[in-house]
Amino acid sequence: MTPTAVLETVLYARDLDAAEEFYGRVLGLTPYAKIEGRHVFYKLEHQMLLIFNPEATRKPMGGALPVPTHGAEGHGHVCFAADAIAIAGWRDRLSRLGIAIEADFEWPNGGRSIYFRDPAGNSVEFAEPRIWGFAQ
Amino acid sequence: MTPTAVLETVLYARDLDAAEEFYGRVLGLTPYAKIEGRHVFYKLEHQMLLIFNPEATRKPMGGALPVPTHGAEGHGHVCFAADAIAIAGWRDRLSRLGIAIEADFEWPNGGRSIYFRDPAGNSVEFAEPRIWGFAQ
Repeated sequence: MTPTAVLETVLYARDLDAAEEFYGRVLGLTPYAKIEGRHVFYKLEHQMLLIFNPEATRKPMGGALPVPTHGAEGHGHVCFAADAIAIAGWRDRLSRLGIAIEADFEWPNGGRSIYFRDPAGNSVEFAEPRIWGFAQ
Repeated sequence: MTPTAVLETVLYARDLDAAEEFYGRVLGLTPYAKIEGRHVFYKLEHQMLLIFNPEATRKPMGGALPVPTHGAEGHGHVCFAADAIAIAGWRDRLSRLGIAIEADFEWPNGGRSIYFRDPAGNSVEFAEPRIWGFAQ
């Protein structure tokens, strides 16, 4: 018995408005749910990307559901899957939008990664699934 | 153009040996790759779970590849997908192993979540994908 899939991936951002502006304008994502000052959630094909304000989630939520506290400070990291053509497209799009590409390289065993930062300083990556031996 | 899938989900743990012991003994996960003191990586069906020591990843990695720095402190959160039967199985397994269940409830719109902590204090959840409107 082992976990087979991650359902929720988390990033933290104190300025959720800046995060929402960035993930919308740059990545084309529309919020699935949000609570002002606490979180903005995005629904992908089979997973959720949850961006929380750690100052809010470190406090008990109140209400009927005993959702546990959490909340980290500093620069997190997330990587989205993209094939080689999509990565080239993302590179063009980021450049057009004036978003600095912090790194762009091929891994020794094949597959490209590009990296940039969100407004909270989180390291955001697009990578080909084959860097981990997955089919595209 | 929007991201469709998360390829890499990240947690942080300063004590990677404790993390590896826990994710192995409790969750049945075998490391896919590791660098002592820096990271331990797990391969799921279509995604990676990466556990990093933030003290190591905040420093440039050196070597040929310009992998960007990152690294957060505090309690992160991850949620694994599991159907109702598997969640019941995980609850039994965690109880048998003496792992405290921090929360266990049904969401108002249907679907169960259970929560516990890893040794670094990260909030680990199993939840039914239908809590987000996904098919199981």
